[in-house]
Amino acid sequence: MTQRTKRVRVRLSGARVTIVGLGLMGGSLAGALCGHCRTVIGVARRAETVEAALARGLVDQATTELAHGVSGSDIVILATPVRVILRQLSEIGSLLQEGCLLMDLGSTKAQIVAEMQDLPPHVQPLGGHPMCGKETSGIEAADPTIYRGATFITSPLARTSEAALALGHELVRAVGAHPLVIDAARQDYLVATISHLPYLLACALVSTADATTSADPLVWKIIAGGFRDTSRVAGSDVTMMVDILLTNREKVTKAVNTCIEQMQRLVCLVETGDKASLRTALSSIRRKRREMFP
Amino acid sequence: MTQRTKRVRVRLSGARVTIVGLGLMGGSLAGALCGHCRTVIGVARRAETVEAALARGLVDQATTELAHGVSGSDIVILATPVRVILRQLSEIGSLLQEGCLLMDLGSTKAQIVAEMQDLPPHVQPLGGHPMCGKETSGIEAADPTIYRGATFITSPLARTSEAALALGHELVRAVGAHPLVIDAARQDYLVATISHLPYLLACALVSTADATTSADPLVWKIIAGGFRDTSRVAGSDVTMMVDILLTNREKVTKAVNTCIEQMQRLVCLVETGDKASLRTALSSIRRKRREMFP
Repeated sequence: MTQRTKRVRVRLSGARVTIVGLGLMGGSLAGALCGHCRTVIGVARRAETVEAALARGLVDQATTELAHGVSGSDIVILATPVRVILRQLSEIGSLLQEGCLLMDLGSTKAQIVAEMQDLPPHVQPLGGHPMCGKETSGIEAADPTIYRGATFITSPLARTSEAALALGHELVRAVGAHPLVIDAARQDYLVATISHLPYLLACALVSTADATTSADPLVWKIIAGGFRDTSRVAGSDVTMMVDILLTNREKVTKAVNTCIEQMQRLVCLVETGDKASLRTALSSIRRKRREMFP
Repeated sequence: MTQRTKRVRVRLSGARVTIVGLGLMGGSLAGALCGHCRTVIGVARRAETVEAALARGLVDQATTELAHGVSGSDIVILATPVRVILRQLSEIGSLLQEGCLLMDLGSTKAQIVAEMQDLPPHVQPLGGHPMCGKETSGIEAADPTIYRGATFITSPLARTSEAALALGHELVRAVGAHPLVIDAARQDYLVATISHLPYLLACALVSTADATTSADPLVWKIIAGGFRDTSRVAGSDVTMMVDILLTNREKVTKAVNTCIEQMQRLVCLVETGDKASLRTALSSIRRKRREMFP
């Protein structure tokens, strides 16, 4: 433990930090970190993204070459879609310097943390999942303020040193977020219901409207706030969501099936006109929603 | 037609208007009408509501007695839950003066318009449904600005005179809303999908979280904007929603069942890990959502 702890020597203010992936989440994090560390380096696949990040002042330096971008960095953060993170984790180890803190921003954690387990021993891994975002995507949508006030889940491994975890949490606090340690399986179970299920519900709602009422031109004149809010997250980035859903298949499937059962229970009460039971069920749900968001 | 037309003599500015029901929608409408007509009278079941409406200056006069409140009025608007409206429609005819415009604010229209058909011939009926609202309810939540910019559906009957329809639309415009004529069956079909379905989806989501993840205290620390927005309308007034659902049973049941099919289609792609089809389906849905809300 003593030896491991020694490996992470820096404080955030002296750190060279590399963000791999400069989309909404990575670009925003880079911008939020400016001024909190020695240097912020961005790595993007496309040259235009590199130019945009530099032009917007979100990074101090940027490159399209991963090896160059992470070389000599104290902290490297993977801000790509989950399945790209998984591939990068299998390749990046040898490019990182001794004691480098390697974090990610992926929305599912079990597969990522399992892959992190296989990193070479000189790397300090820390799973991460900031509970914030927007429906827009790409560097154009980057907004350094999105992390402010958000909960930022971290999933340390048994091999993660206390110093590495402390440095990761210092970074989280620097961008205005609140670190919260949750193990990977538990976080995947929770987000399946509170994040991935709402996304699929929103998608099913849009899909239903498209299959039925959208044929009536008047629908666009009367579409109300309820539909807009309930369907909002259906506008989320598809590449990101496909990766999230496919790396949390079992838990997402279970959450959706539970929700379908709840819908069948409610619609049965409507169909049979069971007023008393419908009132009891809806009152209980309303009370619970108020407890969730006082 | 000529005879009917003569019956509605007033312009809004000279009208005595009675709002029956001083909850969120009725109280807000009363407040929005002040200054646009001669007198605004409120009718509420409870004396405390009468006092609150007067204290807040939402009405010129208020009473708990329906017969007294509607006597001599040029326009009467029923702003009670749908099944209360149905009962009031069967009783109110003889209390109304010759040529009185009788409107309602109920969210379902087929049953209401059918009941309006049986009103005595000296009454001019006009179904109404303003596409606005809030999750709060009661006179305390009344806000005269909620109608501004909203679409206000009107469903005239064959017996409704042109003058009565024009007066109704003048009232709609006076509170800042845009009148849109839709027949009752068509409006009930459209709102089943764009309003009642989102409500039941939000309820099923809350219910699912309650049955599963709510047992974990950490869930409250990470619950994100997606869940909050998708579940928002589950906080709607239960009395109002029970009446809406039970007076639109067939169309709501059909919309929910279509949505369950869409969810089953999407979760099947997740469960089997069919990446290409999942991406295609979610991309198409995202594009449709963007067309709906450019």
